Order: sequence, then C-alpha cells, then structure tokens
Amino acid sequence: MAYLPPALAQARTALTSMMADAPPGTRVAVACSGGADSLAVAATLAHVGPRRGWQISAFIVDHDLHPDSAQVSVVAARQLIDLGFPHVTITRVTVAHGPGHGGPEAAARTARYAALDRLRTQHGVDVILLGHTRDDQAESVLLGLARGSGARSLSGIRPRTGHYVRPFLSLTRAATEEICSLHEVNVWHDPTNTDITPQGPLRSQVRGVVIPLMENVLGPGVADALARTADLLHADAEALEQWARTAQADVTITTTNTAEGQVHLDLTALAALPTAIRHRVLRATALAVGAPASAVSLRHIHALDHLITQWHGQGPTYLPGAISVRRQSGTLVFEPPTV
Amino acid sequence: MAYLPPALAQARTALTSMMADAPPGTRVAVACSGGADSLAVAATLAHVGPRRGWQISAFIVDHDLHPDSAQVSVVAARQLIDLGFPHVTITRVTVAHGPGHGGPEAAARTARYAALDRLRTQHGVDVILLGHTRDDQAESVLLGLARGSGARSLSGIRPRTGHYVRPFLSLTRAATEEICSLHEVNVWHDPTNTDITPQGPLRSQVRGVVIPLMENVLGPGVADALARTADLLHADAEALEQWARTAQADVTITTTNTAEGQVHLDLTALAALPTAIRHRVLRATALAVGAPASAVSLRHIHALDHLITQWHGQGPTYLPGAISVRRQSGTLVFEPPTV
Repeated sequence: MAYLPPALAQARTALTSMMADAPPGTRVAVACSGGADSLAVAATLAHVGPRRGWQISAFIVDHDLHPDSAQVSVVAARQLIDLGFPHVTITRVTVAHGPGHGGPEAAARTARYAALDRLRTQHGVDVILLGHTRDDQAESVLLGLARGSGARSLSGIRPRTGHYVRPFLSLTRAATEEICSLHEVNVWHDPTNTDITPQGPLRSQVRGVVIPLMENVLGPGVADALARTADLLHADAEALEQWARTAQADVTITTTNTAEGQVHLDLTALAALPTAIRHRVLRATALAVGAPASAVSLRHIHALDHLITQWHGQGPTYLPGAISVRRQSGTLVFEPPTV
Repeated sequence: MAYLPPALAQARTALTSMMADAPPGTRVAVACSGGADSLAVAATLAHVGPRRGWQISAFIVDHDLHPDSAQVSVVAARQLIDLGFPHVTITRVTVAHGPGHGGPEAAARTARYAALDRLRTQHGVDVILLGHTRDDQAESVLLGLARGSGARSLSGIRPRTGHYVRPFLSLTRAATEEICSLHEVNVWHDPTNTDITPQGPLRSQVRGVVIPLMENVLGPGVADALARTADLLHADAEALEQWARTAQADVTITTTNTAEGQVHLDLTALAALPTAIRHRVLRATALAVGAPASAVSLRHIHALDHLITQWHGQGPTYLPGAISVRRQSGTLVFEPPTV
C-alpha cells in the first residue's frame, strides 16, 4: 500500500506494541460483538497476526438480548470470514436477570466473560483481544467519579487483565469506525448504545449527553483528559497498593495470645502510616478476616481509623460479616465470628 | 435557643472542629466577599468566636471589578457590624490584567490573597477563614479533570493552607444561603457566578450547566461524590509525595565527577521504583535544577522515563529552562545551563 491512512497505522502500532512480547505461534483470538470497536480490532488482527506468525481466531458471544441478536452474530461472522479469520466461533449465552445479578449491563458482562473464559480454555487460546477505546475509558472514569470511590475506581479500564488485552484504549471510537469503513466492514450499531433516555444504560447517557456537554463547556480535550487521568491514577493506585502490602506485613504481629483466625495489628506502627496507606491496610485486613469486599464502605474504614487516631475509650467496631475490631494492649484485634 | 436549625448546628460544629486547637485569645479573621458562603462563615464566627474567647475581625477585599463594587463592600461591612464584629476592614485592590496574569479569575485570586496576606500581617491575625463550600470543591475536581493532570490537581481545595482555614468544605452552598437567611443577613449575588455564557468564567459554566446535568443523569449524589473523591485523592497524593521525597534522597548520588549544579540519579534504583514514584522523582529533580514548574509537562516526564526504561542509545533530553538530561555511567545526569 503506497499510502497508509493514519487510523490504520495507529491501530497496527497499538496492537503490535501491546503484543510486542507475543512470539510466532501465539494463539490470539478477538472477542467480537459486531460493533465498530471489536470489528476494528479484528480487522487489525487479521492484518498483523499472520505477519507475526500468530494463530488467529474470533469468538462471537450472542447475548440473546435483542430479537435480531442471532442475525447480528451471523453478519459479524461473515465479516470476520471475509477479513480472513480461519476460525470463527459463535456461542449463545443466557444473561441472568433479577435481584442479585446487578443491573442488566453487569449481568451481560458477567455472562460474556464467563463464555469467553470457557472458549479460551476449549480452544487453547493464549490471549483474547477486546475492543475498548479511549471513549469507553473516559466514560468509565466519569462513572467512577459518580461513585466517589477513589483512585482504583477512577483508574478505569486496564490495558491488560489476565488473558485479556485491550489494544485500542488509545484510539477514539471514531477511529475504529474509520478503520471499519476503510476495510469495508459492515458495522452493527447497538441501539442501546445510543439510548439516552433515563431507562437506557447509564453509560449511554454518559456517552451521549454528559461527555458531549463537558466537551462543549470545557473544551474538546475532555475525553483525552479523562483517559490521561485514568492512566495517572492507575499508576498511583499500583504504587499505593505496593506500599500497603509491605505496610500490612510490617504492622501485623503474632503474639502468644493471637487466637485462631484473629489478626493483630500494631497500633503505634499503624498510626505512623500516612492516612491513604493506613486506610488501605485496614481494608485489606478486614477482607483477609472474611469481610465481603462489596460490603466494606468508607464509613467502616473511618470507624476503624477512629479506633487508632481518635481513641477515647469507645467499644469495638463491627464490620460486615460479623467481624469485631477492638483495641487490646497496643494492638488492633480483628476477630471473625466463632463458628 | 430551644430549637437549633440543622444548618446552624452543622456550621458551628464544622467551625469548632476545624479550629479545635485554637486557644482563647486566638485572633481569627474572616475574609468576606459579601456572598452567602463567606457571610455564613462570618455569622458562625460571630457566634462561636466570643464563646471560645477568640478575638474576631473581618476583612473585605474590594476587587473594584464591578461598577457597584464599593457599594457591595459597604453593604457587607454593615452586615458584619450588625453580626457583632468589632473590627471590619475594607481594602481596595487593583487586579492586574492582560498577558502574563492568567485569566481574570486567576488575577483576581492573586490580588485577593496578596491583600489578605498583607492585612494578616498588619493586624496580627493568626487565622483567616474562607468561605469555600462542598460545591466549590466539586467544581474544582471537575476543572482539574478537564486538565487531566492527576491526583494532586484532582484533590481540589484543601481545608487548611498556611494561615488560611476553610471550615465549610463539608457544607453545601444551599446550607450557607440558609444560614444567612436564618441570621437575616443580606447576601450579594455576584452576577459572574451565574454567567453561564461561553464568555463567563469556566467555573460558572461548570456550576450552572455541567454539574446540574451530571446530577440529572448520574443521580443527585454527584457533588458529594466529587468532594469525597477530592478527599481520597488528597490523602493518596500526600502519601505518594512522602514516598517520592524519600525515594529522591535515596536515588540521588554524589560522585567525584558531579559538577557544580548537576544532579546525578542512580539508574538501577530509579528503574526499581513504581512508575508513579519514579515520575514524581523525575519531576521534582527537574524543578530542583531550575525547570519552571508550569512548563514541565507529562510529555517531558515521559521523555525522561524513556531514558531509564526504554534506553536504546538516544541522545540527551531537553527540559524547559535549557536543562539537559543524559545517561552517563549508570546515572541520569540533570545539567542546568552554564551561565
């Protein structure tokens, strides 16, 4: 090709640099929804994969949530075959719904990743590529902000988690549409992505209403700034968690009166830690003695912190999971319920 | 008073807990704009101060930016006298404008703090109270997000900086209006605060357009979530900066070939640091050898980082302030220009 359109160049560079350590023979699959994001990854993989000697394949998860769901999967499969994929697998899943399964988006995500994990094992695949873009990243940061839950939550979508790799986090959604158009690929437009009614997914409203308005008021760089924030806060969260792990080991003490299942933390050492580290150590210890992660709130952590930094003779603090935490001769004692 | 309205109770608790360590005789001033936020602080100080034995006074900075500026100051002074302030000082400042002074809001802020610093010294005041609320905090976080500049920038307005204390960061702006109304204080409504045209201050557009829309889409807790995020990220930033200071001392090495003004950092030790800490050490070192803080961007830090983690024989990197940075026998050498 004499002239390589910038979007294709950017896509190929993004994929090859994310997969720089994948030797020939690596089995790389793309998870494809039929939308522009994942079809653009597929088109890029179809180009780069064979040149790097990878064995490429594609997985389509049919969530069976729309009347035309099967048709969307079949059209996507046809695009993937035309792009040169020798193996395309369609798998249909049942998305749980109702109480205990979170919102419909969370339930669909759970079903999707379960299916992909299963396909990965069955097909002996090393890496599954996903289509998330910089716009997904910006939306995740704003959704995290709305929860107010700190650096880890604000640090958004990671480029790599386990066997999953997201090579296009630096590309815009518009770039993925351009890539599909350059490859003459038929893209499916999921109507729920553009459903900005209050009944639609929260993410669609953030995408369709909040971010455009922010770009209008604050300038066109907002999505970039949000994605950059995610990267910075991710690096911060990694460093803080590293420190917290070391600190947790340092403040945990074993005495002759440590009963089975109890954890004792040294009060003086805890008090000397910076607040951000002490809070992380307290949270990690609560989880270690069995408190459910989703139930431990900032309010619980503050109550524990008061036992250390604002001690005035108060009684034990209770955590979800019937765990009691009390001061006892220079230590903070975490005690799970006796069975 | 038989029944204490919740807003008054919250305000008094907020002020007394922020000033818990201020003994009788402490000289406490409030900086008053005539708006609801600072008049509510003034009203609360007028109640709490005498009971705690503090010597209270009030400063009004007239920015001379509106035709009715002098009148606003005089009306505010009258309110303060009626609230029981024995000393009210009005000072008129000239706000610089034009190139080199930042935007009009930044220039007004610079002039205001310079005037308050001067008044503090002249009147021998220990603490100056400012009126910032939780809503100001939420706006600051969003403005920081739009810049995409990490935890320190997102951590917003601090409760205490030097002699300045902001007791109302946990109160809403609506609560300050209620407090003024309960004290029958006449509040000035700054028209620029509600100017949401593109020509108005960015903060006013965030306040009047972006946050209401976010609350509409994401739920009414957004401003609270943003303020909570600010607190968490502030604690994170403090811990990370503490670690970075220690790390900077650890990686800085003095050899016999360290020329005057140069700084040498140990490459192996730098590479072993988490990214978030290494980037902070690189930035602090750049500033220490004279790079102007406002000119050192993330791009410069990444270029320095590449000298450490992605070395392939590249030449020196240049930083603002004509500083060169190069690899030399196991160290990274920061060299300011020779005069």
